[in-house]
Amino acid sequence: MTIGHDQGQGIIIPMFEFELESSDPQSGARAGYFYTPHGLIPTPTFAPVGTQATVKALTPRDLHELGAHLILSNTYHLFLRPGEDLVSEMGGLHNFMGWQGPLLTDSGGFQVFSLSNTRKIDQDGVTFRSHHDGSSHRFTPEISIAIQESLGADVIMAFDECPPPDDYQYVKDSLSRTHPWAERCLQAQTRTDQALFGIVQGGIFPDLREESARYLMTLNFPGYGIGGLSVGESKADMYAMLDVLNDVLPRDKPRYLMGVGAAEDIINGVMRSIDIFDCVLPTRLARHGAAMVPGGRLNLNNASFSRDPKPVDQNCTCYTCQNFSRAYLRHLVKAKEILGHMLLTAHNIHFLLALMRQLRQAIIDGNFTGLAQQLLRHYPTL
Amino acid sequence: MTIGHDQGQGIIIPMFEFELESSDPQSGARAGYFYTPHGLIPTPTFAPVGTQATVKALTPRDLHELGAHLILSNTYHLFLRPGEDLVSEMGGLHNFMGWQGPLLTDSGGFQVFSLSNTRKIDQDGVTFRSHHDGSSHRFTPEISIAIQESLGADVIMAFDECPPPDDYQYVKDSLSRTHPWAERCLQAQTRTDQALFGIVQGGIFPDLREESARYLMTLNFPGYGIGGLSVGESKADMYAMLDVLNDVLPRDKPRYLMGVGAAEDIINGVMRSIDIFDCVLPTRLARHGAAMVPGGRLNLNNASFSRDPKPVDQNCTCYTCQNFSRAYLRHLVKAKEILGHMLLTAHNIHFLLALMRQLRQAIIDGNFTGLAQQLLRHYPTL
Repeated sequence: MTIGHDQGQGIIIPMFEFELESSDPQSGARAGYFYTPHGLIPTPTFAPVGTQATVKALTPRDLHELGAHLILSNTYHLFLRPGEDLVSEMGGLHNFMGWQGPLLTDSGGFQVFSLSNTRKIDQDGVTFRSHHDGSSHRFTPEISIAIQESLGADVIMAFDECPPPDDYQYVKDSLSRTHPWAERCLQAQTRTDQALFGIVQGGIFPDLREESARYLMTLNFPGYGIGGLSVGESKADMYAMLDVLNDVLPRDKPRYLMGVGAAEDIINGVMRSIDIFDCVLPTRLARHGAAMVPGGRLNLNNASFSRDPKPVDQNCTCYTCQNFSRAYLRHLVKAKEILGHMLLTAHNIHFLLALMRQLRQAIIDGNFTGLAQQLLRHYPTL
Repeated sequence: MTIGHDQGQGIIIPMFEFELESSDPQSGARAGYFYTPHGLIPTPTFAPVGTQATVKALTPRDLHELGAHLILSNTYHLFLRPGEDLVSEMGGLHNFMGWQGPLLTDSGGFQVFSLSNTRKIDQDGVTFRSHHDGSSHRFTPEISIAIQESLGADVIMAFDECPPPDDYQYVKDSLSRTHPWAERCLQAQTRTDQALFGIVQGGIFPDLREESARYLMTLNFPGYGIGGLSVGESKADMYAMLDVLNDVLPRDKPRYLMGVGAAEDIINGVMRSIDIFDCVLPTRLARHGAAMVPGGRLNLNNASFSRDPKPVDQNCTCYTCQNFSRAYLRHLVKAKEILGHMLLTAHNIHFLLALMRQLRQAIIDGNFTGLAQQLLRHYPTL
C-alpha cells in the first residue's frame, strides 16, 4: 500500500487501500471503498467504458451527475489513436478527456487477442495489425505497462491472454504465458501512483481458475481482475467460476469482473464478492436503440412504441425518463438523431449505476439477499 | 394582439406583444421583448434549429443552460416523420420534444421548393415527393397552417415560395403566388395562441421587396419574416435588401431574417433592425468538425491542432472551452465520436447566443455601433 498525498484538508488518504464497510452474512456480497489518487470509489461499482477516451454520447459532466465513480478506457485503442505520447503530452488521460475522477485502463490484451486473424502470439508477447490501417505493432507486458503509465490511469491491468474458455489444454498452456507476463508487468511498473491489478484466467475450469488465482496471489497485487468470462460460456459456467474464486481470492483486495454488464450477471457477481464491473453493454445497446429496464430491454425500434406516451421506465428517475416519452425516443432512433444515442445512453448508465447504489445500500442495511432474490425474479432463470 | 392567459401570478401577459426596450440612434438596431405563450423572448435573438424535433446533439436542458430562448423546427420534416398527428397526440411539439420554451415552425415551403427536381408548383400549392421514400404529397397554404396548428409552435409561418433571388420576372411572378397564399394562411388560421408571421419575398430587387412588404403589411401580421435571402446572393445584395425593408416594415412588429447564422450577417442584420435569426450553420459546422470563433472558424480536422493544449477560444466561457483542448476535440472528430458533435455544437450555439447577448446589451447601453464596428473588423469586408 502506498501512502497517498495530502488532499488539501490535512488528511492523508491511504492510496489503493480497500476498506470493507459491510458484508452480507448470507452471501459473499460486500460494500467497501477503494481509495485512488483521483478519489474514492464506493464498491460495488460499475465502470462505464470510454473506449477512445470518451464514454460514447456522454460528457464527463453527465457521467459525474449520473454518479459514475470509475471510467474505463482501452489501451489498444488509445495506443493506435491518438497515441499514448500525445495523451501524456496533454497532461495524461484525466486531463485529456476532462474526467478528474478515477480511471482504469485495460492492458490491450483482450482487444489484441480478439483480432484473431491478424495476430501472432509467442512466449514474449503478441504481434498484431491495427484495425484502422493494417499497420503492424507489438505488445509485450513491458510495452503494455509503459503505455498504461503514459496514459496515467489510477488502475492499470496486467497484460494477459484471453483464451477460448472451453479448450482445457489451450487454457492451461495459455496460463503458462499469462502468469510470467503478470510477473513481468509488476517488474516493469515504475509509477507508484497507479494500482496494477493481476488478471485471473483459467476458462471455465475450476482447477485452472484456482491455480491462476493462487499463482497471482503469490505476487501480491493490490487488486485482482477476473478475465476471460462473458465471452460465450454459459451463465452457469460464469457463476461457477465466481464461486470458485470467491473462496480463493484475498478478502482485503478489490475484485474486478471484467467485461460484465448485464444486470443479472452484476447481481450474481456482487453475490459472489465482486466489487468492480465494466462493460460496453449499456452504451452499445443505447446506440442500437435499446433501453435497459428491470427484467430485460425495450427495443425502441419497435413500432409498438410509436404512440406510447409513457417513459422508458415509470419508476426511473433519470433525465430521459423524467422528460421524454417512448414515442419521442422511438422517433429519435428512427430518425437516427444523435439525441437518441445521448438520452438512451444516459438512461442505461443510470440504470446500472442506480442498481449498484441499490445493491450497495442493501448490503449495508443487511437485506442484500432478499433484494437480490427479488430483482433476479425479473430475469430468466438459468 | 391576443390577451394571454394568467401565468399563475395574477399577471396578464399581453400575448405576442413586441415591446421595444431600447433603440440605437445611429443604426436601426433595437432591443426588445417578444411575448409568447411559452415565455418571453429577449430580442435580438438567435434560434437554434431542431429540424426533426431535436437540435442535433443537444438536450433541451443543454439549450436552456446555453441561454436559448427560441427553437425552430421544420414542418416539412415533421410532417413526413413522425407526422403531425402523432406529435399532436403526444401533447404537441413542446411536450413531444421536451422543450417548454418558445418554439417556431417554418411553413415547409423552403424545404419543398428546395426539392427542385421532384416538385410541381401551381397557383394553389405544391406537389412534391418525400426525400425518404419518394411518396407523393401536397402542401397548400391551408395544409401548411393545419400542420403547424397540429404541431402547436408559438410562432408559425405563412406558406410562401422561395424563388431564385436574381431572376426578376420569376421573382415578380412568384409574388403573385406568395401574396394570395399569405392571405389564405391568415384565413386558414383557427388557433389564437399562435402568432402567424407573413414572409417578405422579392429576391434581390428593392422594388419587389418593398412591394412585398407593403402588401403583407395590409394584412397586419403580428410579425414579418424576411425570406429568400442567404440563398446564394452576395452579402452586399442581402444587406441592401435589409436596408430597403428597414425603412418599410412597421417598427412595432418583430422582424425575422430567415436562415441566417453567420456572425457577420447577424451583426449586419441587427444593425438593420432584425430581431430574430435562425440557421443550421452552428449545428452543421459542428458535425463537420468546425468551431465558430471571432473572425471565422477553426477546422478541428486540421493536423495542426493535434497537440494543441489550448481551448477552441481562450475567451469563451462555454463548457467545451472551459474543459477541453483542441487536441482532445480533434481526437474526437478524427475518431468520429459523438462527444465531438456534442461539444462543438454546444460551443457554436454558445458562440452565437453570447454574441446576441453582447449585441443586445450594447443596444441597451447605447454603444451598439462601436461594438458592431469592432466585431466586424474580425471579418472579411464585402
